Amino acid sequence: MRRDPSNDTKVHNSVIAQGLGRGNAVEISFTLQELVEISEDIKVEGDINNCVTGIASLKDAVGGDLSFLGNPKYAADVKTSEASVIFLPLDYVGKAKEGQAYLRTANPSRVLAILTLKLERKLWPEVDPGIHPSAVVHDSANVDATSYVGPHCVIEEEAMIGAKTFLQAGVYVGRHVRVGGCCRLLANTTVQDYCEIGDAVILQSGCVIGSDGYGYETENGCHIKIPQVGRVVLEDHVEVGANTTIDRARFQETRIGAGTKIDNLVQIAHNVHTGLNCLIVAQVGISGSTVLGNNVVIGGQAGLSGHLSVGDGVSIAGGSALLRSLNAGEVVRGSPAFPINDYQRMVVLQKRLPEFYKRLKTLEQIYLSPDNP
Amino acid sequence: MRRDPSNDTKVHNSVIAQGLGRGNAVEISFTLQELVEISEDIKVEGDINNCVTGIASLKDAVGGDLSFLGNPKYAADVKTSEASVIFLPLDYVGKAKEGQAYLRTANPSRVLAILTLKLERKLWPEVDPGIHPSAVVHDSANVDATSYVGPHCVIEEEAMIGAKTFLQAGVYVGRHVRVGGCCRLLANTTVQDYCEIGDAVILQSGCVIGSDGYGYETENGCHIKIPQVGRVVLEDHVEVGANTTIDRARFQETRIGAGTKIDNLVQIAHNVHTGLNCLIVAQVGISGSTVLGNNVVIGGQAGLSGHLSVGDGVSIAGGSALLRSLNAGEVVRGSPAFPINDYQRMVVLQKRLPEFYKRLKTLEQIYLSPDNP
Amino acid sequence: MRRDPSNDTKVHNSVIAQGLGRGNAVEISFTLQELVEISEDIKVEGDINNCVTGIASLKDAVGGDLSFLGNPKYAADVKTSEASVIFLPLDYVGKAKEGQAYLRTANPSRVLAILTLKLERKLWPEVDPGIHPSAVVHDSANVDATSYVGPHCVIEEEAMIGAKTFLQAGVYVGRHVRVGGCCRLLANTTVQDYCEIGDAVILQSGCVIGSDGYGYETENGCHIKIPQVGRVVLEDHVEVGANTTIDRARFQETRIGAGTKIDNLVQIAHNVHTGLNCLIVAQVGISGSTVLGNNVVIGGQAGLSGHLSVGDGVSIAGGSALLRSLNAGEVVRGSPAFPINDYQRMVVLQKRLPEFYKRLKTLEQIYLSPDNP
Repeated sequence: MRRDPSNDTKVHNSVIAQGLGRGNAVEISFTLQELVEISEDIKVEGDINNCVTGIASLKDAVGGDLSFLGNPKYAADVKTSEASVIFLPLDYVGKAKEGQAYLRTANPSRVLAILTLKLERKLWPEVDPGIHPSAVVHDSANVDATSYVGPHCVIEEEAMIGAKTFLQAGVYVGRHVRVGGCCRLLANTTVQDYCEIGDAVILQSGCVIGSDGYGYETENGCHIKIPQVGRVVLEDHVEVGANTTIDRARFQETRIGAGTKIDNLVQIAHNVHTGLNCLIVAQVGISGSTVLGNNVVIGGQAGLSGHLSVGDGVSIAGGSALLRSLNAGEVVRGSPAFPINDYQRMVVLQKRLPEFYKRLKTLEQIYLSPDNP
Repeated sequence: MRRDPSNDTKVHNSVIAQGLGRGNAVEISFTLQELVEISEDIKVEGDINNCVTGIASLKDAVGGDLSFLGNPKYAADVKTSEASVIFLPLDYVGKAKEGQAYLRTANPSRVLAILTLKLERKLWPEVDPGIHPSAVVHDSANVDATSYVGPHCVIEEEAMIGAKTFLQAGVYVGRHVRVGGCCRLLANTTVQDYCEIGDAVILQSGCVIGSDGYGYETENGCHIKIPQVGRVVLEDHVEVGANTTIDRARFQETRIGAGTKIDNLVQIAHNVHTGLNCLIVAQVGISGSTVLGNNVVIGGQAGLSGHLSVGDGVSIAGGSALLRSLNAGEVVRGSPAFPINDYQRMVVLQKRLPEFYKRLKTLEQIYLSPDNP
Repeated sequence: MRRDPSNDTKVHNSVIAQGLGRGNAVEISFTLQELVEISEDIKVEGDINNCVTGIASLKDAVGGDLSFLGNPKYAADVKTSEASVIFLPLDYVGKAKEGQAYLRTANPSRVLAILTLKLERKLWPEVDPGIHPSAVVHDSANVDATSYVGPHCVIEEEAMIGAKTFLQAGVYVGRHVRVGGCCRLLANTTVQDYCEIGDAVILQSGCVIGSDGYGYETENGCHIKIPQVGRVVLEDHVEVGANTTIDRARFQETRIGAGTKIDNLVQIAHNVHTGLNCLIVAQVGISGSTVLGNNVVIGGQAGLSGHLSVGDGVSIAGGSALLRSLNAGEVVRGSPAFPINDYQRMVVLQKRLPEFYKRLKTLEQIYLSPDNP
């Protein structure tokens, strides 16, 4: 299939046609030479006729697009892909077609990441620093002159915003909050009073940092609110997903360790601590005072009880319910969560329950029948 | 029980007393004739004394209220209901009391929908077009003159808003976004840069369209963000629930097919595609690059792994965890999800485990005891 | 370990070092006498040298800090804690060290709650009433003169705000909404048209009250929206967590009973009713028209089907899926949810499945082998 810009539904899926390249927006154009220069270890096989002008998956790519094989699951799509350039792992077996180039590298995903970063800089050009006239900034707040505060943001008493930080629009920064440098707080995020945010932190839209922890004393069936006078600390390079909520501590801190990445709609309760570089996937819930080590990975929709201790490098599968503490390196799954091997054996045996039942019945019929002594 | 407006706790539950009919708010008043004219197939049994002035469930209704039997589960409530008018299916067996009318129709729920639509138009009268002076609209943005942009909305560079679209308040529309005609973007919604929204789309409050997908390359335990340079496309007649999040694609698109309705607090990851007219109930999570066919139904809190393909008309029960692709028409349940029949047999047998254990023990005691050769 | 303010990483965790006591922020300082006066039943053992100047957990506390034993799980930490003052239950066995005081009381958690309330009043001093000039308040709205309406709030037509209510910033209050007295609506919350909020209600940031219920009539595979013309009523002393969503009724009401506390990211569907003083933990989902009695407790991430009736005092464990109605006082767990005893037996037996299988095989090998008649 050849690209015909005037009438081609497939074109609709390539970046060039995503409104990203239309009209005055960004023009994508990379020569083969520019692509090869991305990483030292790239080896070229074949050649292309023109510049690359779009990026697409192996299946959706048309002539002129760049594609890549990141997940071996899609290896079969390489052969039939119409992409002009394909990034491939070193061990992929196959040859480029005419007018097509294969670029082999140890890690195609990493090379693509570098490329999309270049693209990102075109799509989101740097914003001029300054405070939008509609923003409301308290006299006692301190905003670095190199930062941008967008429309309808609110920065309260004694708050501080570091250098080169970007507040998109409608962002609320409460009293005595400290936000570091090079942060990105996207539209409609909330950071409540006294919280502290390190450098290079990203808050996706709608997330809430420093909501009250869920704590009550019950007297005669009525629940009396326990004031939550602690705060939230997000260390450097943390990312928080859209509409995720992180509660302030009852006292002391809820703390997210440097480099930890949290997906959308996650709930982090009061006094939780995470270590460095954890990955917490969407819709996970972590109950109060649970402590995670470094490099813990938690799959989507998993839930963790409160007051647990989870060791370094633990992996908790999506949808699991963790009810007990774990040592470093454990891999668990299920609800309640078991070591992964136990879990898998249990699932297999559960599926075989109808068979067991039948075999048990057979034995009974032979040996427990009235005819049998 | 007769309605006494001055002192009647039950009145508190009827629409008329919901602040909807109080003071200067909407007056509900339908004659029997007006109700009969809603649908051609309505057959009247009985008569009423006055106009209908409220709508309530069968149990809560008082004299003067209209009610209906939508779910057969509540059939027993018809006889004892004090509603003046009741919409009933054709096959309901029973007779209206004096001063009461039964209106029979093939689909009472549908008739009620038409009626509430009339009511809706009274409760939410059309808003005059225009841009509120507190809204911040970039010079290069293009807002149709027939649309309404409410207080504190922000419309960035090169964004376009189609005809008769309603932006309630505090709505953020990012750079190069295109919003179609006849859309409703409710308070505090966010649409990030480059996303595209079709016609007649509804975004409930707090939802986020176009947050960054969750993608990192890990090097030496550190997670390096992969720029997410794609976008989100919502086709015509899509509805997105409150605080739901839909991530922009890594590249290319995350796309929600026309007529698909998404409930609250749902997470749709990057590069997911849904077909036409899917129903995705609250708190569902769909992982990256999974593709749904048309008319797929996903029950509340279900989770889908990434890179799956789900055929047309598939039904996934609430709370399920789908780990594999499904063919058209499959019905699954459980965590992990099994075909519904297998699932139900397994649940039954799980409940019988104590009994199995006992029977196994009985056999052992007889045949494996030392007395037995 | 002694506190050395100049160089001590541990200090970083005590309240005094949380930015709460730094610079111009709050100074914590309680004498032993002030602490003893909190509750009549406090008995002192030991004495301290100086004022208490921080609050920390038993493990993190340093000299000068106050701590407490709330959860017996941490009893072993009392002995080794460096806290200067520790609140303890009456039955704790042990003696204070020199320069340390034990304060015994029937309920240490409750005493701490009183103390933190005092602290809270310092951290969040009362705000002067008034309407921020950037707020947009409709001419027909009625805001009590003792209330505070913060920056960028929007209060629409005919809305009413009671006395001493606090709207932090970016709060949206729709048409005909009524908000009671002494409420706290935190940043970026949304209350849609016609909803009613009682006295002393707290809405955490980002929550949405009165989004449309999820209701469609399907005709030929297309889903036609059923207008949701009811409203939401939050009775007195309700608290709603961050980014939680509560849908308006199809008609009539969605109603949250007085004193009910809802955590973050919870979904309450249309026409749900909760009784008094329920506790609904994070990420719970309650489907349409389900009715809860009083003092129902629902653990995190549990899901409830629609049209159920749940009796007073029911307890549903976290992660459960409730598919049937429950009588008062029932305690259930699992997915689907079973009575807690049945559930626990089932989990134990599931773990023993490999053993059962082996035992069954042994019987078969002996009695079903060809050698056996």
